[in-house]
Amino acid sequence: MPLRAHHVVIDAEDLPGLAAFWSEVLDWPILSEREREVVIGPSVDAPFGICFMPAGEPHTTKNRVHLDLTTEVGDRDVEIARVLSLGARHVDVGQTGDESWVVLADPEGNEFCVVRPKVNLIG
Amino acid sequence: MPLRAHHVVIDAEDLPGLAAFWSEVLDWPILSEREREVVIGPSVDAPFGICFMPAGEPHTTKNRVHLDLTTEVGDRDVEIARVLSLGARHVDVGQTGDESWVVLADPEGNEFCVVRPKVNLIG
Repeated sequence: MPLRAHHVVIDAEDLPGLAAFWSEVLDWPILSEREREVVIGPSVDAPFGICFMPAGEPHTTKNRVHLDLTTEVGDRDVEIARVLSLGARHVDVGQTGDESWVVLADPEGNEFCVVRPKVNLIG
Repeated sequence: MPLRAHHVVIDAEDLPGLAAFWSEVLDWPILSEREREVVIGPSVDAPFGICFMPAGEPHTTKNRVHLDLTTEVGDRDVEIARVLSLGARHVDVGQTGDESWVVLADPEGNEFCVVRPKVNLIG
């Protein structure tokens, strides 16, 4: 069996705080919580989740790796409003405003995008 | 429905090249290929994949967001040798060498870890 994707790891300054934010955003429970590692995921049996580990430094430049999130058709504006209320904010990474995606950042500045709903990866 | 994770997006200097590397690493086919967006994933119906988009600048500092990969028990050393042969390299991000994970970087310097095989997210 080849390697498989297991976690997206996000360096965090406030591990429980950032994990709580993303747990709310994705409606994923906190699966394990230790001082230096907090894991969220769809379920304990899911192959893939997000792991928060201590950051050496604060976020200063645009991340080279980020998450794209998507929604069901019709839910996007409501969902964007919801994550803004959870502590996300709009950020400018050079987008023109004509893109089909919205660029946000989590409470520690990690950029993520909310993309147009798609029925599958190449929709 | 809440937001769901759709892609990990990696800013790439050589989109087809970096997509080919990760396609081999994960045994995920290339699902779509455009000049400014290449997508790989387990299948067209899979909810989650990796998207490569143009990078503004080369990789210079440790990424704040990275992927953890895992293997079946017994396959790790073989898989690490395989990804090294594909163009990965060992990198030093301050690890002591006593960790249960191995830190590598892709051909453009994006760090990723190969972690101890786990039966599930909290194993």
